[in-house]
Amino acid sequence: MTSADPARAASALDLGLLAPGRAGSRVETETGDGAYLQALLDAEAALARAQAALGLIPAAATVAISAAAQAENFDLRGLALSASVGGNPVIPLVGALRAAVGAEHAAYVHRGATSQDIMDTATMLVAERARVVCLADLDRVAAALARLAALHRDTPMAGRTLTQHAVPTTFGLKVAGWRSLVLDARDQLAGCTLPAQIGGAAGTLAALIPADEAHSVFELVVRYAAEAGLDAPELPWHVLRTPVAELGGALALTAGALGKFAADVLVLGRTEIGEIAMRSGGAGGSSAMPHKANPVNATLIASAARQVPALASVLYASMVAEDERPAGAWHAEWSSLREALRQVGTAAELAANLAEGLDARPERMAANLALSDGLIVSERLVGELEPLLGRETARAVLSAAAQAAGQQGTSFRQTLGETPEINALIDGKQLTEEDLDQWLDPAGYLGAAADLVDRSLSRLPRTGRSRPAK
Amino acid sequence: MTSADPARAASALDLGLLAPGRAGSRVETETGDGAYLQALLDAEAALARAQAALGLIPAAATVAISAAAQAENFDLRGLALSASVGGNPVIPLVGALRAAVGAEHAAYVHRGATSQDIMDTATMLVAERARVVCLADLDRVAAALARLAALHRDTPMAGRTLTQHAVPTTFGLKVAGWRSLVLDARDQLAGCTLPAQIGGAAGTLAALIPADEAHSVFELVVRYAAEAGLDAPELPWHVLRTPVAELGGALALTAGALGKFAADVLVLGRTEIGEIAMRSGGAGGSSAMPHKANPVNATLIASAARQVPALASVLYASMVAEDERPAGAWHAEWSSLREALRQVGTAAELAANLAEGLDARPERMAANLALSDGLIVSERLVGELEPLLGRETARAVLSAAAQAAGQQGTSFRQTLGETPEINALIDGKQLTEEDLDQWLDPAGYLGAAADLVDRSLSRLPRTGRSRPAK
Amino acid sequence: MTSADPARAASALDLGLLAPGRAGSRVETETGDGAYLQALLDAEAALARAQAALGLIPAAATVAISAAAQAENFDLRGLALSASVGGNPVIPLVGALRAAVGAEHAAYVHRGATSQDIMDTATMLVAERARVVCLADLDRVAAALARLAALHRDTPMAGRTLTQHAVPTTFGLKVAGWRSLVLDARDQLAGCTLPAQIGGAAGTLAALIPADEAHSVFELVVRYAAEAGLDAPELPWHVLRTPVAELGGALALTAGALGKFAADVLVLGRTEIGEIAMRSGGAGGSSAMPHKANPVNATLIASAARQVPALASVLYASMVAEDERPAGAWHAEWSSLREALRQVGTAAELAANLAEGLDARPERMAANLALSDGLIVSERLVGELEPLLGRETARAVLSAAAQAAGQQGTSFRQTLGETPEINALIDGKQLTEEDLDQWLDPAGYLGAAADLVDRSLSRLPRTGRSRPAK
Amino acid sequence: MTSADPARAASALDLGLLAPGRAGSRVETETGDGAYLQALLDAEAALARAQAALGLIPAAATVAISAAAQAENFDLRGLALSASVGGNPVIPLVGALRAAVGAEHAAYVHRGATSQDIMDTATMLVAERARVVCLADLDRVAAALARLAALHRDTPMAGRTLTQHAVPTTFGLKVAGWRSLVLDARDQLAGCTLPAQIGGAAGTLAALIPADEAHSVFELVVRYAAEAGLDAPELPWHVLRTPVAELGGALALTAGALGKFAADVLVLGRTEIGEIAMRSGGAGGSSAMPHKANPVNATLIASAARQVPALASVLYASMVAEDERPAGAWHAEWSSLREALRQVGTAAELAANLAEGLDARPERMAANLALSDGLIVSERLVGELEPLLGRETARAVLSAAAQAAGQQGTSFRQTLGETPEINALIDGKQLTEEDLDQWLDPAGYLGAAADLVDRSLSRLPRTGRSRPAK
Repeated sequence: MTSADPARAASALDLGLLAPGRAGSRVETETGDGAYLQALLDAEAALARAQAALGLIPAAATVAISAAAQAENFDLRGLALSASVGGNPVIPLVGALRAAVGAEHAAYVHRGATSQDIMDTATMLVAERARVVCLADLDRVAAALARLAALHRDTPMAGRTLTQHAVPTTFGLKVAGWRSLVLDARDQLAGCTLPAQIGGAAGTLAALIPADEAHSVFELVVRYAAEAGLDAPELPWHVLRTPVAELGGALALTAGALGKFAADVLVLGRTEIGEIAMRSGGAGGSSAMPHKANPVNATLIASAARQVPALASVLYASMVAEDERPAGAWHAEWSSLREALRQVGTAAELAANLAEGLDARPERMAANLALSDGLIVSERLVGELEPLLGRETARAVLSAAAQAAGQQGTSFRQTLGETPEINALIDGKQLTEEDLDQWLDPAGYLGAAADLVDRSLSRLPRTGRSRPAK
Repeated sequence: MTSADPARAASALDLGLLAPGRAGSRVETETGDGAYLQALLDAEAALARAQAALGLIPAAATVAISAAAQAENFDLRGLALSASVGGNPVIPLVGALRAAVGAEHAAYVHRGATSQDIMDTATMLVAERARVVCLADLDRVAAALARLAALHRDTPMAGRTLTQHAVPTTFGLKVAGWRSLVLDARDQLAGCTLPAQIGGAAGTLAALIPADEAHSVFELVVRYAAEAGLDAPELPWHVLRTPVAELGGALALTAGALGKFAADVLVLGRTEIGEIAMRSGGAGGSSAMPHKANPVNATLIASAARQVPALASVLYASMVAEDERPAGAWHAEWSSLREALRQVGTAAELAANLAEGLDARPERMAANLALSDGLIVSERLVGELEPLLGRETARAVLSAAAQAAGQQGTSFRQTLGETPEINALIDGKQLTEEDLDQWLDPAGYLGAAADLVDRSLSRLPRTGRSRPAK
Repeated sequence: MTSADPARAASALDLGLLAPGRAGSRVETETGDGAYLQALLDAEAALARAQAALGLIPAAATVAISAAAQAENFDLRGLALSASVGGNPVIPLVGALRAAVGAEHAAYVHRGATSQDIMDTATMLVAERARVVCLADLDRVAAALARLAALHRDTPMAGRTLTQHAVPTTFGLKVAGWRSLVLDARDQLAGCTLPAQIGGAAGTLAALIPADEAHSVFELVVRYAAEAGLDAPELPWHVLRTPVAELGGALALTAGALGKFAADVLVLGRTEIGEIAMRSGGAGGSSAMPHKANPVNATLIASAARQVPALASVLYASMVAEDERPAGAWHAEWSSLREALRQVGTAAELAANLAEGLDARPERMAANLALSDGLIVSERLVGELEPLLGRETARAVLSAAAQAAGQQGTSFRQTLGETPEINALIDGKQLTEEDLDQWLDPAGYLGAAADLVDRSLSRLPRTGRSRPAK
Repeated sequence: MTSADPARAASALDLGLLAPGRAGSRVETETGDGAYLQALLDAEAALARAQAALGLIPAAATVAISAAAQAENFDLRGLALSASVGGNPVIPLVGALRAAVGAEHAAYVHRGATSQDIMDTATMLVAERARVVCLADLDRVAAALARLAALHRDTPMAGRTLTQHAVPTTFGLKVAGWRSLVLDARDQLAGCTLPAQIGGAAGTLAALIPADEAHSVFELVVRYAAEAGLDAPELPWHVLRTPVAELGGALALTAGALGKFAADVLVLGRTEIGEIAMRSGGAGGSSAMPHKANPVNATLIASAARQVPALASVLYASMVAEDERPAGAWHAEWSSLREALRQVGTAAELAANLAEGLDARPERMAANLALSDGLIVSERLVGELEPLLGRETARAVLSAAAQAAGQQGTSFRQTLGETPEINALIDGKQLTEEDLDQWLDPAGYLGAAADLVDRSLSRLPRTGRSRPAK
């Protein structure tokens, strides 16, 4: 930060004050301007190495360029300030890199490339490095949730729909669902193609290879991608933005998956519900209220889940990129994608901490299940009584009992036991009091929940990316 | 539309007036309320057939349900009006279907299912049927663009970046790029999993199978999905919304791919540029101006590309679905997804007509290439002159010549020929006038464009969905 | 709907099946294709009347045009189908209207206008008519909430932050806040300028007035706006889209305001919280579970609040309208704005019904306040004990007591009473047991809640639109 | 940046590398983390001053707090890192500020406030300070465009619709339209209410005022707002987010207004069109292509216009804020609003430079007008010939002539002159050759363009904010 008045710069810049959770996270390190600068330099160095390997430039130039291509040698803020002239930071960076390697090698820096080649390749490098961090945290989330789901495979709790108790479910099934969703996101994120970009001024690679060797240009492309540690592109994708848009979609899916987890944690942790506890990574204090334990991690994940879909919409819309380089659509991708990577990477780290510190409170689950005094299994009672009383009568009897219990404050079970139609069944030996008691036990109406948990936990993350993280 | 005053209903409803291109399209037929109603009924019938196959309900009930499950037997507007009571159209539909099958079979309608099971399955059926239509049109687009790219593999035109001429490219490469992007979208859309949904009131399948047979519930799930003609789900996905969000992303990607094609058509067809002509499917008239031939299809595609990313953002955000059925997030998916399907299906049909009627105008491309009098290959001149003059001198000479030509209105070629440094090279036999002429020919600076076209055209659509369309 | 095969059309069209709440609503009637068609015809008739008033066309033509301009005389679906040729429905409509008025008057139909003049004016007419409906429902919401806030001005309940009990508040203050937000939205919506549009082919009004009378063209503009019942524009706004974007923003604000109301209703109505009851307009049943009473209205409002911001983003982005009529940005407005009007109009009607049927359950509020056994007023205890014990000691004592109560299951009040520091204060006459009891009463720590309610209820809706609704 | 390893921090943080135009701008200085920190401290100091003024805390404490409340005294990065524990930066900041003022005054720091009070007030302060900068630049834009519109009040150019020449217009009218749109945005932005926030833990102000003085709490609120230099709120707006959403909408409107300007600049500056030139603030170079002059400012403005609508949609959606402080919706506002302020402030500064350096090229406008050889005034010819030939014949004659001219490459004027129907008119003295020439002159068919320019330029910015910027 040598180029600007320090006080003014401190006032101007983003140090993470508005990004709790991101500040200090691993994804922040991989996506900051310094990381971006290094990725830009890595792209230039990879190009030089690939060109040297094909005999297009001298090997000595490559050595000089690789040696110089270290972010700490450059004035980051100065580059940022200079970027406004040409509209991107590569133009001043190429000048600075040429100066750094000296007159002898300057001509071999950025040879035949256009700014977008370097910018796009750097973006994919940053994305790849952020993805490594993010996938590791998603794997932590999935592992912690697998343990929790197995532990509570058979713990009954209220299933809730449209905010109301519906029928019983198990905490294990809920957690297995969270994990399944996280794996969906993980697999989609891991499956995104992150290609290097090389095309020259308008995507014909004209300045990159002698005209009579155009047919062998793919060798250069493949070598460049390999040197950069990225996928090889089918075509220059200057204005074919599938990689960015697809990544944006995968990040939005991940934000949504983590957001579902957070949303349920926020509901279950409400003061009145209290069905979960957070040992760590979740409970933050309040300066004003000593008793409060705020679900901070879930809150910050929920915040990310509100923002990433809008960022992804910018990326999808930026596919509409006219000509061989659009005037605006490309530029709109940069901070939108970086912000999406940061938000999702932060949310994944927060979610891993949250998941690893999450406990169920089965006693609260049981207490809440009992709140409705059996009404939560009314669906079951309908099913059991229909064959005995007929559909209409069964429903009428149950509705009346439910209503009576609600109005008179007596127990639903008791009210039911005093209903003439029920008594007639008992007298007729078609029904016993024990049947009624059993039907009214929420733990006896869990359907295939346990089997669904088992089935779900047998799913493994796709091995996905075999390429080792750099 | 029997339930409402006809005049008022006509006033109220959407007949396609605001949707030019969609009105009368095939995707409209597959996504309208009638199609949705049929899909809801198909879902109920598939459930009954699956239950009968497993011996859970009588075969005769299945026959009655399948026979009754025809959209034309139901009062569509009446169902729409009744849907507000419970918040979805399945509740009144189940009542109407029970009435239609008669008291004998009524109990076997919707047995054990919840509204969302039917709604989600119907949504996937509508999506599947709309996708078939859409993929066919995307295949038409890709085929037409493949022909056009091959035809113009070597047709030079100006490459444009940030609205300015950059270096030459070919129309073939531009078109091959459009096709590549369309194939990306096609493959992603074709690859989306569209699963049936069955879970019961809270996703435990409790009312769908006797408690002691819970382990065999997957047989029912698999059979139900097969009867519906959809993928079998891993888990009930009531609140695990990957299928909807992923489809939304694929639709946004498709809108973006078609939008890129349209954006270029709009630029190239500008009055001053005039490099393409539209034989059909593109040129609409104006009532006021007899001379006008508006690029209507490209305009309507561009309109869709502006809307679908926002719709996709709603779908991604709706993944944050609390509990076992959320109060709002699920409901927000319905019209957002349907509208995205319609917009993309319409755009694909318009794009197919546009692509099949598109012609290049190579003479206009050549004329535009000549506009800058050789400046468009200044990059090449830099490359050729650098070894002869040194980097700095080469650039200085070219900049001066370009500036002089611009100011004095003389030819860049001529100005260059009068430059002392160039003359010295010619005198020294390091350069000939013919070299200069050749270097200034845009058609001689196309890089690997032709090879990129060949490579790109060798890509085929993924065979993708083997399951035949229903 | 005469132009298409009826069965196919039924399958294709939107009758409201996916829009519970909208189907049958008043806003649906004002925004349907029939209403839009009438608005298009109203715009044509207003133009003719204005032109006749200035002597530009014969009065007889105006009479014929006004008489013919009735939506029921036109084939709506046929117009929709024809709209694809030119990309908008005005082109075929002008043809049909000319046919309807006969050869004698045909030349005076749409004289000098362009399609966009009529389309934009019709859009503003539809917006105006939908706004009237919507404002009336917002006024109902505000009135019902005012009554509820006054009734519960002093009813204590738990204030909740980040899902946890924070400090007490009152239900009256919460409701007054809802109303305040609704009034904000109402005032902004009422304040939107909805101008007529007239500019001709490129906004110069060239064909609308003889060249030598150009200076008097504003008379025509003003008269046209008056005839249409809309505001007069400053300039033709073909590509100056403030009216549409501003309206989109006001609709998003309204959706957000109603969404906040719904969000709180959904929380307060949760089974475990139960602090409100819905007499009407809110509670929908379930076919599977006889006991359920779903918060349907709040759910559907929440759904709208998730969709309208994305629609508004499309409208804001469509301001970037190149040239004198953009190729896509204008077209993207039509269904986005109409859908936003419908969603907000529906939400307002649902919210009015919800608000008018909403009851508080003070006994549940009291029970929930008591849940934390006094911890909810820990902030107050800090404030009261700090002067007596010093800041650090006060906080330490309270934290320890809170923790002890939590772990040992004894009462916080009792634990506090057994704390040495507290006993010392009591022994020293600095504190009485009664002080402690009083401080622990949530109803005694309501701050300025009552005053805030009074202040808020004194705010009236801005009289806003003096122009009477048509 | 003392708290973290410097190299790692450099890698992690945002110094503006991805934000050309923003880096070094005035709005960056007003919105950076340092500016935010100062605003947080200003809010704390304003609260203390207001409390002292009402005798609630000692005056000496206020002096100490105001003196300590200087951003440079605090470890910004350290605060950012600590913010994750409680989920916002105010919690650690209050601790640091208490330490800074010493034990004597610590109890009077943040007295009775909650984190959100300080965070929201700081956000409004940052917004106010960024707005001042932004309005000044919008005023520069409007002033430059006023000059340009006046200068080219009568300069004819092609009006273009759907990318095609339509009828002539003037550059003055186009520029006047840009200005009008910018004024719309300016007025809306200037009109936003930016209130201070004070409510305490749940918005009742309970800890801020002794219970028996609750009725006078508004005095504190008003004084606090005045001390902060912000509007006084009607109610605590913790969860009544009109100020943030309305500001988001105004920023999206501004981005759209500037985006329209940029979009037209990008079209008019295309190589083939060339109707404008950029003296400064617009034309950036390319490292590869010496001849290029890229429209950098317009490109960066266009990029902002693609992003701000999505950010605004996040803000509108965040109005759905449950309870007395939502878990996520509030947090999602912070960076979305800050980014919107930065994007718009940057775009306004770029637009001011662009507008001040913009020149028309009337000779290119004339040349392009001539491209269609008179077809651009075909609307006029229809109007002139209709009375002479009848509607149908007039249109047929013109269409035939246009088609013939297009196919045979002869002049439209000449073709027209050889048409029998036209010759008959000339022979019959109903028409002269001079009439034809005059009608075919684009400069003679400008409608009310000049009057519209005059009318539009008479509009002044609303005086709006009388409160002087701090």
